[in-house]
Amino acid sequence: MIQAAESTQVEPITIEAAYEAVRERSLQIARPLSAEDCAVQSMPDASPIRWHLAHTTWFFETFLLRGDPTYQVFDPGYEYLFNSYYNQVGEQYPRTQRGLITRPGLDETLAYRTHVDRAMLRWLRGPSRSEEQTSVLRTGLNHEQQHQELMLTDIKHALSCNPLWPVYDDRAFESSTSEETDWSVVEPGQYEIGHVGPGFAFDNESPRHTVYLNGCKVSGSLVTCGEYLRFMNEGGYERPEFWLSLGWSHVQDEGWTSPLYWVRRDDQWFQFTLAGLKPVCPEWPVCHVSLFEADAYARWAGQRLTTEFEWEVAQRQCADADSAESVPDQFADHLLNHQKAIHPTRNSNSLLGGVWQWTSSSYAAYPGYRPPEGALGEYNGKFMCNQYVLRGGSVATDSQHVRPTYRNFFPADARWQFTGIRVAQSL
Amino acid sequence: MIQAAESTQVEPITIEAAYEAVRERSLQIARPLSAEDCAVQSMPDASPIRWHLAHTTWFFETFLLRGDPTYQVFDPGYEYLFNSYYNQVGEQYPRTQRGLITRPGLDETLAYRTHVDRAMLRWLRGPSRSEEQTSVLRTGLNHEQQHQELMLTDIKHALSCNPLWPVYDDRAFESSTSEETDWSVVEPGQYEIGHVGPGFAFDNESPRHTVYLNGCKVSGSLVTCGEYLRFMNEGGYERPEFWLSLGWSHVQDEGWTSPLYWVRRDDQWFQFTLAGLKPVCPEWPVCHVSLFEADAYARWAGQRLTTEFEWEVAQRQCADADSAESVPDQFADHLLNHQKAIHPTRNSNSLLGGVWQWTSSSYAAYPGYRPPEGALGEYNGKFMCNQYVLRGGSVATDSQHVRPTYRNFFPADARWQFTGIRVAQSL
Amino acid sequence: MIQAAESTQVEPITIEAAYEAVRERSLQIARPLSAEDCAVQSMPDASPIRWHLAHTTWFFETFLLRGDPTYQVFDPGYEYLFNSYYNQVGEQYPRTQRGLITRPGLDETLAYRTHVDRAMLRWLRGPSRSEEQTSVLRTGLNHEQQHQELMLTDIKHALSCNPLWPVYDDRAFESSTSEETDWSVVEPGQYEIGHVGPGFAFDNESPRHTVYLNGCKVSGSLVTCGEYLRFMNEGGYERPEFWLSLGWSHVQDEGWTSPLYWVRRDDQWFQFTLAGLKPVCPEWPVCHVSLFEADAYARWAGQRLTTEFEWEVAQRQCADADSAESVPDQFADHLLNHQKAIHPTRNSNSLLGGVWQWTSSSYAAYPGYRPPEGALGEYNGKFMCNQYVLRGGSVATDSQHVRPTYRNFFPADARWQFTGIRVAQSL
Amino acid sequence: MIQAAESTQVEPITIEAAYEAVRERSLQIARPLSAEDCAVQSMPDASPIRWHLAHTTWFFETFLLRGDPTYQVFDPGYEYLFNSYYNQVGEQYPRTQRGLITRPGLDETLAYRTHVDRAMLRWLRGPSRSEEQTSVLRTGLNHEQQHQELMLTDIKHALSCNPLWPVYDDRAFESSTSEETDWSVVEPGQYEIGHVGPGFAFDNESPRHTVYLNGCKVSGSLVTCGEYLRFMNEGGYERPEFWLSLGWSHVQDEGWTSPLYWVRRDDQWFQFTLAGLKPVCPEWPVCHVSLFEADAYARWAGQRLTTEFEWEVAQRQCADADSAESVPDQFADHLLNHQKAIHPTRNSNSLLGGVWQWTSSSYAAYPGYRPPEGALGEYNGKFMCNQYVLRGGSVATDSQHVRPTYRNFFPADARWQFTGIRVAQSL
Repeated sequence: MIQAAESTQVEPITIEAAYEAVRERSLQIARPLSAEDCAVQSMPDASPIRWHLAHTTWFFETFLLRGDPTYQVFDPGYEYLFNSYYNQVGEQYPRTQRGLITRPGLDETLAYRTHVDRAMLRWLRGPSRSEEQTSVLRTGLNHEQQHQELMLTDIKHALSCNPLWPVYDDRAFESSTSEETDWSVVEPGQYEIGHVGPGFAFDNESPRHTVYLNGCKVSGSLVTCGEYLRFMNEGGYERPEFWLSLGWSHVQDEGWTSPLYWVRRDDQWFQFTLAGLKPVCPEWPVCHVSLFEADAYARWAGQRLTTEFEWEVAQRQCADADSAESVPDQFADHLLNHQKAIHPTRNSNSLLGGVWQWTSSSYAAYPGYRPPEGALGEYNGKFMCNQYVLRGGSVATDSQHVRPTYRNFFPADARWQFTGIRVAQSL
Repeated sequence: MIQAAESTQVEPITIEAAYEAVRERSLQIARPLSAEDCAVQSMPDASPIRWHLAHTTWFFETFLLRGDPTYQVFDPGYEYLFNSYYNQVGEQYPRTQRGLITRPGLDETLAYRTHVDRAMLRWLRGPSRSEEQTSVLRTGLNHEQQHQELMLTDIKHALSCNPLWPVYDDRAFESSTSEETDWSVVEPGQYEIGHVGPGFAFDNESPRHTVYLNGCKVSGSLVTCGEYLRFMNEGGYERPEFWLSLGWSHVQDEGWTSPLYWVRRDDQWFQFTLAGLKPVCPEWPVCHVSLFEADAYARWAGQRLTTEFEWEVAQRQCADADSAESVPDQFADHLLNHQKAIHPTRNSNSLLGGVWQWTSSSYAAYPGYRPPEGALGEYNGKFMCNQYVLRGGSVATDSQHVRPTYRNFFPADARWQFTGIRVAQSL
Repeated sequence: MIQAAESTQVEPITIEAAYEAVRERSLQIARPLSAEDCAVQSMPDASPIRWHLAHTTWFFETFLLRGDPTYQVFDPGYEYLFNSYYNQVGEQYPRTQRGLITRPGLDETLAYRTHVDRAMLRWLRGPSRSEEQTSVLRTGLNHEQQHQELMLTDIKHALSCNPLWPVYDDRAFESSTSEETDWSVVEPGQYEIGHVGPGFAFDNESPRHTVYLNGCKVSGSLVTCGEYLRFMNEGGYERPEFWLSLGWSHVQDEGWTSPLYWVRRDDQWFQFTLAGLKPVCPEWPVCHVSLFEADAYARWAGQRLTTEFEWEVAQRQCADADSAESVPDQFADHLLNHQKAIHPTRNSNSLLGGVWQWTSSSYAAYPGYRPPEGALGEYNGKFMCNQYVLRGGSVATDSQHVRPTYRNFFPADARWQFTGIRVAQSL
Repeated sequence: MIQAAESTQVEPITIEAAYEAVRERSLQIARPLSAEDCAVQSMPDASPIRWHLAHTTWFFETFLLRGDPTYQVFDPGYEYLFNSYYNQVGEQYPRTQRGLITRPGLDETLAYRTHVDRAMLRWLRGPSRSEEQTSVLRTGLNHEQQHQELMLTDIKHALSCNPLWPVYDDRAFESSTSEETDWSVVEPGQYEIGHVGPGFAFDNESPRHTVYLNGCKVSGSLVTCGEYLRFMNEGGYERPEFWLSLGWSHVQDEGWTSPLYWVRRDDQWFQFTLAGLKPVCPEWPVCHVSLFEADAYARWAGQRLTTEFEWEVAQRQCADADSAESVPDQFADHLLNHQKAIHPTRNSNSLLGGVWQWTSSSYAAYPGYRPPEGALGEYNGKFMCNQYVLRGGSVATDSQHVRPTYRNFFPADARWQFTGIRVAQSL
């Protein structure tokens, strides 16, 4: 598999192998699910699993195969049905109604995948690709890996609506603890931020550019459930003084009293996981909190969140200090099991992994950023409003995406991703 | 099958045979559907097919089998999950979120049906039942037949959300016309209204009681698509003078310009049917109109809708004149195919069948009505507010329910049932 | 004054005097109010007092004066601004946004009234009117009297939004009790229903027609606050078995735990009145309940509401028995003060007055009803959907409207009118 | 007057004079308005004028006078009624319902102001104030000046709801043009950002800190109506490629086709102003656009918005080049008339004034920012989420607030402020 390969050996793998590995991974995630599980859309922000399977396929068909005159389109109706948001490709079926589409069903969707995969492999083995085609291909693979993470978060949300607490995979569970580590000090000064080098990165990680940081200390540990419980027990959800005004409105309107998926039963806190309902373990990193909760926790603790730039610099310092590979061990085998997908461990010597970490940075273009020409220019740029950057990656994240410059982004009230908290202090 | 049996022979069939026939009919309706089709809830008023299959089973389990100490409950969680609205049984899973439940899936739901059916047949063959138990059993069978109609209307709505216009059953289509028939005259005077006799009827059809009618003429024909097109072409949907105030608000807020499921393409009207998209045929009864549209059409035509009492008297007069069986021919074989489920024929010599016919009568208790004791008292009485009575039955309706006293009821804006128009005039 | 006149003498008063009396009464109601009080629209169902003052004036201008070529329109913009719902007159400013209009202000609105009044009095003293004009004139006066009741209910609602509990008129308060009276028995049989005779009635009270009633007993007393408190104390608002399904949804969605305007303070119930916050008095008729609450109370008490026909027959029987004037004493002086406007007394020997009484009858056309031609045909007919009839009148009601055939109507969840409960039992 | 004073002379004015001038200015703004005009809340984001008058008074009473044991509270109920959002002071009357409060009326509100003003002047002449009290006093005056701007924008919105297009002040209108000026070049490098020095600034303008800028050119001119019309005429509101995804949703959901207050009549564009409806003048700066529209315009023009840091540096460079006073001429007399309040001129040699200018910077804390202790800590910090910074000031802005470091902030869809566009280009 591509990820495992990359982290254990230096030899390049073929592009065909990479394609097949990524595509297979999506099927692997869907395998424990029934046709019904794959059909449901449990909220507007989530999508049906079957839609993810089809849309990631549509991406290759639309942006690569349609340019090939010998390619036979699988079903012309899919162009509209599985377009997510590319206005330059055409109209889109309304996003909030994806769960209403029962056909094509799972079997036909898998047949669509097979059809496109065969054509893609033929195309990959064909005459040499243009540089732009190669770029689209790499984007397509990374795009599918992003959707793989969403498949896990979306199915978790869907199953959580069921009062019988169904299990996605009963091995997807593990207790873990880790040593406390030191705070990283980021000295005041100029730093270079953003992607550089030959590896793949999304357009929003560029251009690499200079920022000036005023200096801070970044915690070496993620906030744990035990720490978060102290915040809750000291009235965290009842005291407006800790909260952003919008956050406090959410607390009151939505009745938030704990992270998402936490359930109170017989005076004990449980959390719904992909392995079913499990007791909250104080040592685990707290997860499924919004930016509002992360920010309120930090204020309660007399600390603050990092900016995305502080985070990136601190991470780079850790990695340099450790001279370790950039992809930590925990990811090596996550394709084989989901054990850590739910209660991710905390890493020493890296800020990466475990849970996504809210930063205080609004998602915005880097200086000099220009979206690519054409429909793929809609990939990132047009979403740069009212969203906040998360850094680090979770165990649901493909290991290839767990890199220091990766910018994840969600609205401040989003809680269904594997999102947690890392605190900082100004110097 | 019980319905076929009744219409062709006089001999009673056994209650076990009746039970099995009704239960089989639900499976028959679900047979052309995939697991995904059975999972979707396309609007709050509709329910997933799988939910219908489970809930009708739950009814027998809850109201009959749970009283049997030897019965093994299939899954204790179902009591909550498949309770529709019986507060006396306990809390209910929110109605509008039935589509979020992916488990139990279709296979497990069918296993649930088999489990309950086995227990029910054992129970039916057991020692003699109390009168109340027999009454509950008959209610349970009629209840399931009501849900069978809803299964057809709900899946039609769900499939209509798909821009690919999927086909439920391509035989579910038939062109038909019928002769114009005379108007029935209901003379002023006292009439008896409501159910009487040994046959089954729901509690809301009783007690039989006297009403005084001021006299009217009732059309012998249902309003056709051709007639309704004239209303449309003369600005029916643009002229407020024809509309109830609430209806006009719906026209504007919802953008109604035609009956539900009508689609304009290349200057021609089509309608979505269970057999896919078909041209509108001027001779068919117009269908999928709200009370608002029915009332506006009647006002445009210089006529009015009937009251439910006028309708019942006129139907009884037709039936007497015809001395025919009360269940018209068209229903004899509808268990075998759905050909008429979509474009029902108009009957001569009966007001029954074809499409449900909106009356101007608000759904209310008959004088002296008392709901039954216990949870089954919630079956009808508590819904007597802001709904209007429909009479007659459609081809999606089980033939046993197509009787002169049957009272169907829906809110004035409902359009996803097979609802049409019969006009009347005051004398 | 016209009302006082009618109840104390037989001589006809002039139409000019009647016009002036009705118009003055509107000003009298507005007199205790500030410009701000007259400007607010506290919910979509209510209108600003200033709008009521303008709209009732617009009615005379639009339907009578515009036909007079010598009349000078006050401001052409008002035709749009103060049209309530007459599509045949033209477009209307959105009803829910009436509170956004700050100009014309109160002074200019009063000037508008003066302008139209002068023209009307000139017109009234002019050459003889057509029969249709006389009919429109009478409708206009009754229309304004209807709005006078709404002015009181709308300002009560608006003031209730103010946590300082402002006082409209501190004399608008009186404690009162009355003797229990017997139940009226309505025997089974045919009865004539609806308006007959020379007095004014709205179109919806006609035609007079025959109904058959199955017989009932109607309570001689209105349900009191004390009786309603027992319902509340026995869990009335927590037990779904008493409620219509829609009503129970309202209880839960709106958090109803008492009638509107009841406030719990220091373990005691108070109610907001036009005289400010006052303790609930057990002897007063309960007021400001929805149909849902009236119906639930009746079910809890083992009784039911009347139909509007039963009510009308029972009232006529009372009046005959009493041979009293049809307008009870309490109304003689209500133009002079508002003392009873808030806690209306119960009458002996009449079902009239005190509070409006919910019936179980959906608001529908009488057999043979035809709305008048032209815009005034929109007065009543188009509202005959999803509303329920109230009978009897409250002390906020003009005494001329307190007649046995008067049909008031509101949606089942309306609570801001002076609405109460009278129970009945089937024989 | 304090502002005029500051811009024309060096001598300090007394604090009493400053207090009186600021307080008088609020009354001056309200003077052309009726009681009804002062009562309305035309949308949730706006507040009634009377509420502004009371709340700004409440501020001094709550944060200064309540600490004085000799002070007599005017009305204890006001603490709740006129608290905007200070949780540490106590509960607040719901913001969206401020328009429902009709009492205290305008007269009583003015009496409240007089009462507090007398107490304040007594207090100001009293024994020396603590440093913290002086700080609160200055904040209170600046706070009221902020509300003065909101009074103008809120009454403009309210009057715009009236189809009769009422006039606030018919002198509030002026045509103006200005010379095109050069672009400012901001060279790459480190800059100091934020407030420094003895003058007043809000907490969110501090601490002064270092940023690194990558270099850009900033336009010397505001975008004009004529330029914006070209954007509109080239399909600006129909072409999704120019828009942020959220912005495009707004365009479609709200039906935006022009800036707020623009009205199409007889093939010509008009705009509603405080002087009534006026033709759009191509030379004026475009105004009443959202961030979404500003961003879309810039993208259409092949440019971009500035960051707030670029803006601040460019402005400082202009001011240095010009060596002029920091407050431009146009503000000198704006207390005397509103002529420029509607169609503000463009300034040469300054980015200040005319209209507020959207930046691409999300509103966030400066490094090291800490909100003040106590309730006043709620002034700015808790709003730092999902808002964007505007720089420069409009003619509705008090001249004292038109400074290079002032940070105004609104959500990206806000259009009722005097907001316009200044473009930039990366180097």
